[in-house]
Amino acid sequence: MNIVLIDSRQTQNDFWMISSQRQIQHLKQHLEIQVGENLKVGIRNGKRYLTEIIEISEKRILLKPLYEQATPAKLPVTLVVAMPRPKVLRRLIMDSVTLGVDKLILIHSYRVDKSYWQTPFLQQIDDYITLGLEQAGDTIVPKVEIYKRFKPFVEDVLPTLINENYPAFVAHPYAENKMPNSLDHGCTIVIGPEGGFIPYEIDLLCKNGCQVFHLGSRIIRTETVIPYVLGRLFP
Amino acid sequence: MNIVLIDSRQTQNDFWMISSQRQIQHLKQHLEIQVGENLKVGIRNGKRYLTEIIEISEKRILLKPLYEQATPAKLPVTLVVAMPRPKVLRRLIMDSVTLGVDKLILIHSYRVDKSYWQTPFLQQIDDYITLGLEQAGDTIVPKVEIYKRFKPFVEDVLPTLINENYPAFVAHPYAENKMPNSLDHGCTIVIGPEGGFIPYEIDLLCKNGCQVFHLGSRIIRTETVIPYVLGRLFP
Repeated sequence: MNIVLIDSRQTQNDFWMISSQRQIQHLKQHLEIQVGENLKVGIRNGKRYLTEIIEISEKRILLKPLYEQATPAKLPVTLVVAMPRPKVLRRLIMDSVTLGVDKLILIHSYRVDKSYWQTPFLQQIDDYITLGLEQAGDTIVPKVEIYKRFKPFVEDVLPTLINENYPAFVAHPYAENKMPNSLDHGCTIVIGPEGGFIPYEIDLLCKNGCQVFHLGSRIIRTETVIPYVLGRLFP
Repeated sequence: MNIVLIDSRQTQNDFWMISSQRQIQHLKQHLEIQVGENLKVGIRNGKRYLTEIIEISEKRILLKPLYEQATPAKLPVTLVVAMPRPKVLRRLIMDSVTLGVDKLILIHSYRVDKSYWQTPFLQQIDDYITLGLEQAGDTIVPKVEIYKRFKPFVEDVLPTLINENYPAFVAHPYAENKMPNSLDHGCTIVIGPEGGFIPYEIDLLCKNGCQVFHLGSRIIRTETVIPYVLGRLFP
């Protein structure tokens, strides 16, 4: 937690208030905060401030805002990922948000087990986003969309994301060419499930404007490939 | 598990043998293997083969080697990481190995809690390496070294790793310049602990031949920064 993310409701009075038990506990136990110290605070979808800690109690922490701080820019990227196993979902969302993904889209695919869509973790996406923002020092919530049917997404939604300066790349081990690097423009990246997209899916993605590239001969897990490919594409 | 890693001892007879319970269970339960199917097998620190499954029993799987397959090349990189929290260690080692790190060095640093060195996970590094190799389809065990004292490592060991074509880069949020990208040579990368290196440590690293760079204004967790920086450095 490198900033504490609060809602604009919590900034209505002269002193701002942290009231989440998760945040209060983390600040007390891990950061061992004291009255009089400075604390970085972000307002969800708003600005980021340096504040001074005025009061620490069981149920709240009061802050005095000192001055505004810059928030980091997002990466110009739409990340489309086949729905991962539930225990990977939290980490995948946190990391994508921390690294600055502008828009995250979870999709179905042939090799995605249908049971994955039943996970209660899907209800907690907002919490994972908060954790990712607090890690990065960012305040702007990325857009998240979910499409539980592959074909309608690829045929109807994906083409609207693509243009000359914003291509779409699919990572696929059997592609001929290696993924580009060091882009000077934005793009959509499409990452398949464990075991990869099936040929029909790759075909449909290509027919709808995607370019298919490999990432070398090593097979990398979904949650690892995301930071790997973002580091590669956006220097 | 994209290959099954076995020891050369297990390849002494006409039919090769898988005897690890972990591997047998994974192959049966997750991959649902059947007699007559093909299976990718790597010999630890040796070659990689396509094999045919001859027999599946409770305690062993027998294989007939068919032909040799290429193993992926390593990245020309020595990764030096401040010892992470125990629960991060497993993932950090697996990912580093999967991505092809040639040599991994764990070091102490001021902000590394001394208790981290007591973790039983340190005894399981070989297991994590195996998992990383099996994920990547690689067979060559990377070198792993551990230095529990920062200063002797930086003064006596680090300079021996650095030369004109193999510089050492430290990732540090307060550096002036951004980390290079798309290298055409190898390098050592030094990654600090949660909270970063202290000024004294950065100083000592610089005095001993390191160049200090930042990775942008987002604060990224150690386990995420590793794939991110490897993707950036080695296209």
